[in-house]
Amino acid sequence: MAGETTVTVVGNLTSDPDLRFTPAGSAVANFTVASTPRMFDRQSGAWRDGDPLFLRCSLWREYAENAAESLVRGSRVIVHGRLRQRSYDTKEGEKRTVMELDVEEIGPALRYATAKVTKINRVTGGEGSSSWTPEPVAVGDPPF
Amino acid sequence: MAGETTVTVVGNLTSDPDLRFTPAGSAVANFTVASTPRMFDRQSGAWRDGDPLFLRCSLWREYAENAAESLVRGSRVIVHGRLRQRSYDTKEGEKRTVMELDVEEIGPALRYATAKVTKINRVTGGEGSSSWTPEPVAVGDPPF
Amino acid sequence: MAGETTVTVVGNLTSDPDLRFTPAGSAVANFTVASTPRMFDRQSGAWRDGDPLFLRCSLWREYAENAAESLVRGSRVIVHGRLRQRSYDTKEGEKRTVMELDVEEIGPALRYATAKVTKINRVTGGEGSSSWTPEPVAVGDPPF
Amino acid sequence: MAGETTVTVVGNLTSDPDLRFTPAGSAVANFTVASTPRMFDRQSGAWRDGDPLFLRCSLWREYAENAAESLVRGSRVIVHGRLRQRSYDTKEGEKRTVMELDVEEIGPALRYATAKVTKINRVTGGEGSSSWTPEPVAVGDPPF
Repeated sequence: MAGETTVTVVGNLTSDPDLRFTPAGSAVANFTVASTPRMFDRQSGAWRDGDPLFLRCSLWREYAENAAESLVRGSRVIVHGRLRQRSYDTKEGEKRTVMELDVEEIGPALRYATAKVTKINRVTGGEGSSSWTPEPVAVGDPPF
Repeated sequence: MAGETTVTVVGNLTSDPDLRFTPAGSAVANFTVASTPRMFDRQSGAWRDGDPLFLRCSLWREYAENAAESLVRGSRVIVHGRLRQRSYDTKEGEKRTVMELDVEEIGPALRYATAKVTKINRVTGGEGSSSWTPEPVAVGDPPF
Repeated sequence: MAGETTVTVVGNLTSDPDLRFTPAGSAVANFTVASTPRMFDRQSGAWRDGDPLFLRCSLWREYAENAAESLVRGSRVIVHGRLRQRSYDTKEGEKRTVMELDVEEIGPALRYATAKVTKINRVTGGEGSSSWTPEPVAVGDPPF
Repeated sequence: MAGETTVTVVGNLTSDPDLRFTPAGSAVANFTVASTPRMFDRQSGAWRDGDPLFLRCSLWREYAENAAESLVRGSRVIVHGRLRQRSYDTKEGEKRTVMELDVEEIGPALRYATAKVTKINRVTGGEGSSSWTPEPVAVGDPPF
């Protein structure tokens, strides 16, 4: 893809990830990240919270399962993905549009936490099996 | 700060983080992230690796300690930070410039892994104690 | 500020910028940018348009005046700014939330256009006068 | 492509763009952007300049020609592109690595300037002719 609008958000999950499966067996996880900027108040000489940004996120396949097993309500995460708009009709027949994040990468932020990481090799048979095979660790001769 | 150049990189650590302490007791972790883009080759109809990008990263204080306890050589991470240039003189008296990443946030990417996350409350007394106090989890009424 | 969610969007203005002034004399420009990603369709071997993203933008002070004088409906632009959510009540008393972009920087994209650029030195007396004084061109000894 | 490292830089050109042509007739423009962050100094209560970041940029085909016709030394620009590392051997046989920006989009920033924009339809016959056909302006029914 080209010309996508990507964004990186750091914030906390407002609830546990909601993990579901399509009839074909593909996992999808949905959750909301609340990101609160910090502003330096020159008058008081102290930092204070700005308005939080709530961003609804969706994540697919093995990645969704890994996230659902690792993250809970309150987890602080770094999320990188594509901004996307989705339109739908309300019960009253009104058209609404919401902004969502199609997650490409997510992980727990380590500012106030440590993490014990375990590599996973899921065997999945659904239509949604990832076509992105694990990349080997880049080794050899980094330039510095 | 304003007008900074920020970047998000996803890749693998080329070695374990190198954790050191300043005389005043502040921790600093240094490591290199290798990020390998994937390109779709129209001729062959398959994805192949592009040239890796090696980016040297530095991270401070409690965050550095958390990262050093959680990540090892080969860990796949998401890193967000500020691009910065640093100049130095070689032993031969030549001036060199390197691009580095001042890490703001980092975490293990969960694409091929799960993580068991533990909150940490470090008590540190150095000059480098974080002035960024933990933000409370945003709760209440997200707008959707 | 720290912990902001910033984003860069490339797209076309859906209408001329709407320029207004506060009672104190500060300019504000509002407009919407439509960004259309392009996807490579492996079946057909051709690129096709993805779903457009419509992002409402606001811009202040001299910058707003410069943009309103330079851009029109259809102009292709690069916009960099902070994502922000704004809540409001509809006439029916419902609460709604919209995502907007607080523009930090904007300019016409030169992919299919050239631009004749003219430096501006506005003298404004409003409360909104920019506290960001023009930075001098960095000259001297770039490292390469 | 997937897994690229993209970045948006705002800064000033340190010299006029250097425009060249390949034997097959494709244009390429090279230039360096100097980006200077601003820091708020709590002691003095004033903003001051941080260390500038110099980023070497390259841009291809019609886009390169448009940029070379529009921008000069000192022009303030917004640039969005992919970070890339390039290795080369010095005359002394040493291996060096530089970080560069593969420009995807560029335009003059309108903070202190206005721009008169002219659409261009170049007819080029080189191997480098863009395969990215101009996208139509998104019209119709934006969701708000």
